[in-house]
Order: sequence, then C-alpha cells, then structure tokens
Amino acid sequence: MQKPNIEVCLSPQLFDLYDIKGKVVVVIDILRASSTIVTALNNGAEKVIPVSSLEDCQAYRHEANHILAAERNGQVADGFEHGNSPLEYTKETIEGKTLVLTTSNGTKCLNMSHNADLVLVGSFLNLSSVCNKLFETHKDCILFCAGWKGHFNIEDTLFAGAVIEKLHYHFNFNNDAAFAARQLFVNAEEHLLDVISHSNHYQRLASYGVLEDIEYCMQQDLFHSVPELKGNFLVLD
Amino acid sequence: MQKPNIEVCLSPQLFDLYDIKGKVVVVIDILRASSTIVTALNNGAEKVIPVSSLEDCQAYRHEANHILAAERNGQVADGFEHGNSPLEYTKETIEGKTLVLTTSNGTKCLNMSHNADLVLVGSFLNLSSVCNKLFETHKDCILFCAGWKGHFNIEDTLFAGAVIEKLHYHFNFNNDAAFAARQLFVNAEEHLLDVISHSNHYQRLASYGVLEDIEYCMQQDLFHSVPELKGNFLVLD
Repeated sequence: MQKPNIEVCLSPQLFDLYDIKGKVVVVIDILRASSTIVTALNNGAEKVIPVSSLEDCQAYRHEANHILAAERNGQVADGFEHGNSPLEYTKETIEGKTLVLTTSNGTKCLNMSHNADLVLVGSFLNLSSVCNKLFETHKDCILFCAGWKGHFNIEDTLFAGAVIEKLHYHFNFNNDAAFAARQLFVNAEEHLLDVISHSNHYQRLASYGVLEDIEYCMQQDLFHSVPELKGNFLVLD
Repeated sequence: MQKPNIEVCLSPQLFDLYDIKGKVVVVIDILRASSTIVTALNNGAEKVIPVSSLEDCQAYRHEANHILAAERNGQVADGFEHGNSPLEYTKETIEGKTLVLTTSNGTKCLNMSHNADLVLVGSFLNLSSVCNKLFETHKDCILFCAGWKGHFNIEDTLFAGAVIEKLHYHFNFNNDAAFAARQLFVNAEEHLLDVISHSNHYQRLASYGVLEDIEYCMQQDLFHSVPELKGNFLVLD
C-alpha cells in the first residue's frame, strides 16, 4: 500500500501554495486556539463555532446556551467576557453549551480549510489521538500551523514535528518544512516547555500573566478525541 | 551599545510582514542564485544585474560584454545559453563582463529588497565575510531566504542559522524563525551536505545531474567579499 504524504504549512500566508482538495488538514494553534477547542469539546461543549471576526461572534449573542469568546493580541477582546484561555472552559462552564470562538490566528485557519476532505484540530492535549486518526484515515495530509499574524512560530511547528515523528513509518514527508519540523521536535522533545519559553508567543503571553495556560497547553494526551469540522462547526469525532 | 536585531524571513511570501526600511537585507538563495552571484563577482565580473523576467533579461541582448543567464525550474531557460550554475562563471568566462541574471527565486528577492538601507548577497561561499559585514554595519538585519516558489527550504534556512550562530553574541534574535534556523544549523553543522541531500531542491537538481553544483555551493569561505546592491546592479563591497 502506498504511503500518503504529510506536508507542513508553516504559516497561513503560505497556505495558497497547498492543494487541499481530497486531503486532511490539521489546524494547529497550540497557544491557544486549538488547545482551547480540544479542551472545550472534551469538557462537554456541544460544539464550537469558529468565526473570523468579532462581528461574526457577536451575531450569536441572542442564542441560548451559546458562550461568545473572542481573543485579539493575546487578550480578551473589548466587549467580550470570555477569551482564548483553555482553562476557562471547565466542565462546569461549558458542558452542553456551544462555544462561539474568534481568535487572532487559529479560527481564521479553520475557516480557510473548508475545501479539504476532512479538517481536524490538533494540540499536544490530543496528540496521540490526532496521529491515530491520521493513520486510520490514510490520506495525504497538511499540518497547518497557524503561526502569529502570518509569522512562523515555534510551538505550532514543534507540534507538526511531533506528529511526523510519530507517523514517519507510515507516511512520506518529502518536503523541507516537514523535515525541519521533525528535526526541531526531536531536538526539543526532552525539554519542550523550556524551548517554548524562548518563543515570541511565550514572552507575549507571559507579559499578560498567562503562564499557567502555556504549561497546560504543553501537556500531552490529556484527551483522547479529535475535533472535526462539520460544515461551520466543530464536534468530536 | 545596544545590540541590533537579526530576523529571518523564511519565504518571499512572508516578506511583506517585515519592515525593511533602515535595515540590512541579506538575500539567500544557496541553490543557486546567491552562490552564482558571489562566484561571478569574485571571478571578476564587473557587475551582476538581477532581473525578474526572461523579457527583462533579453532586453540586454545587444549590450557589449553582457552575458545573459536565465534559469527556470532549475534548468537553463528556453532561448538562453547560460543558466544558474556557479560553475559556469569561471574567470575565463566572466572576467570584465556584466552578468544579467534571472532565476526562479533569488533574483526576484533582490528586486523586492530595494527599499532596505543595504542589500547583500549571502552564500556559504562567503559566509564569514557576510558575518563580518553585518557585524561592522551594526544595524538591524533581515536574513531573507528565497525558498522555492514561495515554499520554505532547508538550505537557505541553514545558511541563516549559520549567520546567527556566528553572530549571536553581537545581535539579538528574539524571533521564532531565527531560533529555529539556528537550531537546525547547529544540528546539521557537522554533516551539512548529508542534510541538504535530503532536501527537495537537492532531489530536484540531482535529477538534472547538477550534484557538482551542490557540492560546490556548500563549501565555506571560498571567497572573502560580499555582493552589494547599488541601484539596479550588484558589485563587490
């Protein structure tokens, strides 16, 4: 059986270089949209609706059982009560509710991926489940790093590298971005949090006092389900 | 004295994220435009004119002492005698001549960088001289990887990492792309050619039989001068 390909897209500004038709796209925004989505759904959210703008998010304000959450520049956006911290979305807060979420990077990437065959959300919190899902699906896949406002970032790339490291026997990854992501992960594997602590985004978030979020997001396999995009919302597979 | 910053731009499609005003831009297209430019000038070319299109290149066809060179998809472009192999530009061929060069990636990046304070061409062939020049200039700088048709590539990133590894005491490099480039270089330093041999571009060029070019381009410090953009052409500093 031929091995499918894994490609890594290092930034939304490079996404137009990839043909996503018939492929699986894994959207990766470790700090923090994908970690938040994985947490909310695993803690019982009925669904998550990723929206690109603050206005689109506000449009749901009269819906029952909807929690509106908006993050811009790493902080809760003006006019909103909830932001992009996964720690906000405990079972008590989110069970049975719909989370409408807009963030600086990750939710935009979800909305760019609609034409793929299957769109998943990946985070360290569900790393093994993402890998199992890709292995079972056995299709070409694109690991889509959300980055930061178009820029490459290290934490999303490390996650892409982690997926490749786990799946390299079963997939081809003949592209330089995948090679680099894997190398970076293998180097960092034993001290991930330390490596992340040198990243731009860590420093940005640390200045807002959300180091707890980062430690939380770097935990592996806390959950065993993978969010999937169905139309305009995400549910667990 | 405050340390200047080094940033790494991993692809021309990310270049609009960088403010290049007042900064130094080092254009990097290891395989092969920057290696070819460095070689041609160090072998006595009077100047190199980087042009973006085949038509712009042909426009010089009636000029005396001009060699027109064009590469597309790794090969000599149709209608041209010369391409993008640095080994073509020996002293015998190029001394006293002007090289008009258009390539798939590198020459376009040069033409995107005009608004910078200073535009240099970097390759492993003149690595130490590029670092010395940046050290002396003591300004914020952007290491601009040409990549391949918008995609990230490993050989340009490794060169950016090599520059950072040499200059990290003297510059700040608080950005994730610079961190990643340095990590990748430090990993690969002892077996650069082996790492490059896994790259997409190596495989592309190998299929055209130009492995000799790659071995040549990976040599360090064969030359001790740095090409600088002056208006629309490149000369040695």
